[in-house]
Formats: sequence, structure tokens, C-alpha cells
Amino acid sequence: MSDPTAQLERDLLAEIPMARAMQLQIRALDGDCLVMAAPLAPNINDKGCAFGGSLVSLLTLAGWGLVVLKLRAWNTTCDVYVQDSAVRYLAPVWDDFTAQARLAEGESWDAFAATLAARGRARLNVDCRVKLADGADACTLQARFVAIAKS
Amino acid sequence: MSDPTAQLERDLLAEIPMARAMQLQIRALDGDCLVMAAPLAPNINDKGCAFGGSLVSLLTLAGWGLVVLKLRAWNTTCDVYVQDSAVRYLAPVWDDFTAQARLAEGESWDAFAATLAARGRARLNVDCRVKLADGADACTLQARFVAIAKS
Repeated sequence: MSDPTAQLERDLLAEIPMARAMQLQIRALDGDCLVMAAPLAPNINDKGCAFGGSLVSLLTLAGWGLVVLKLRAWNTTCDVYVQDSAVRYLAPVWDDFTAQARLAEGESWDAFAATLAARGRARLNVDCRVKLADGADACTLQARFVAIAKS
Repeated sequence: MSDPTAQLERDLLAEIPMARAMQLQIRALDGDCLVMAAPLAPNINDKGCAFGGSLVSLLTLAGWGLVVLKLRAWNTTCDVYVQDSAVRYLAPVWDDFTAQARLAEGESWDAFAATLAARGRARLNVDCRVKLADGADACTLQARFVAIAKS
């Protein structure tokens, strides 16, 4: 795992108590896909499957982390916020789970960087999903993030 | 606080580790509005305000709890699942916070009960929000829940 990815995991676990409670891990930044993972046990619900709040938290953090890591790679100092998201719960998750985040269709890092440079802030849509072992979606999240340059 | 509300709080804290980690409380069921609360400290993020995952978790649990408490009042044994939700993060939350859940406009408990009785399952839209001290919305969540009768 590259240093920036390991550093982000350390930051999240140090600064967000709920990330520690979830036992969040960053698995990999593979091309333009960031993968985070969490074990089922601390994230279980009353039915014995994954708690929806944990699924959304991991999905949102994966999307947020994808943007943060790209900005760090550019040596750009920004705050990154989630603005809104749409969540679909499609199937229960009965095992440890991973969340994958990648740019939404039609988005480009180049356009994002150009807007950020010109205006000091830029928005970006990210597509995140938790999949079942057979590849089907269990939970999807489309989220819009905004990055604001620190002056 | 009525017994069913206290019982639901005990159930959530017993069965969902993340509800314990968030230090979730049920404040009141006031008419058709369920209010849940959480302190800031265990739910803080890297910026020192409330973690988005905690906001969404509390909002979703408040909506879910509203439906569950109504079904328990009817002595109807159902599983209740969240199907999808739309979340808007409007302002950072710098203090302990509460989530209010009520039926979405156009929804009625009577229609929900009738469909559930006829078909054994029924859907319901719930409107949930975390407000700032001045009454402005900090985070809103519209969620759709499905109740499925246990045979």
C-alpha cells in the first residue's frame, strides 16, 4: 500500500472515532478506484447483517478519500466536504464488506483540477458501491463532493 | 418517556454496536415525530464537527424507529428495512445533535396500514432532519422504508 494511502488510513482512524468503531481499513488505491473495508462484527444490525449506517459511512468515506488522495497527489491543500448523496440498499450484506469509489461517468480529474485552479473550489460526483461476493450491488451511493482551496 | 420508546432504545443499543458507539438516545415520540439524539464527542470528524456518517446513521435510525414504533403500537409483527434515501448536507454541526423523523408530505398511516393488511408489505416515505440551534436545517434525509409482515 502506498504511503499516501496508509497515511490517510492513519488520519481517519486518529481523527474520526466512528471510523475506529467501524474498524475501517483502506485496502487499495487501484488506478482511480479507492477500496475501503470493514469487518461485519462491529457493524452488525438487529437482523445480523450489516447496519445501513455503516454501509453509508464506509461508502461516503471511500468517495471522500478518493478526492482527498487525488488532491494530496497534486500537493493541493483543500478542505473536502460531501454535499449530497443518493443511497440505494439493494441486498443485505452478511459478511465483511468493501466499498469501492470511483469517478462518476462524465466526470474528469482534469476538469476538476482546472475549475479548482480557476475558482478556488470545484465539485465532483463520485460513484460508490458495496458488492456481494457474486458481483451484484448490495448498496450504492452517488455523492457530490466539493473541494475548497485553503488560502 | 413511554415504555415502547424506552424499549426501542434498549433494543438499538443492545443489538447495534454502532448505535452504542454513537451513544444514541431516544429523546421523545411527540405525536408523529420521533426525536433521537447523539453527543458530538463520539461522532466528531477530522474538522471538529459532526461526522456525516453519524448524521446519516442517526437520521436513518430515527426514520426507521418511527415506523417500527407505529407497527409495535398496532401489535403488527414486521421487519422494517430502509430501501433508499436522499441526503443533503447543508451546514456543519458543531454541537450535540438531534434527528427528527416524521411522515413525508402526502403519506398517511391509514393508507400504510391498509396496504400492509391487504398485501403483507407496504412502503412509506419518511422525512428526517437535523436542525441547528436557530432552526435552520443542517442535514436532511428523505428515506423510503418497507415493512414486511412476518408470517
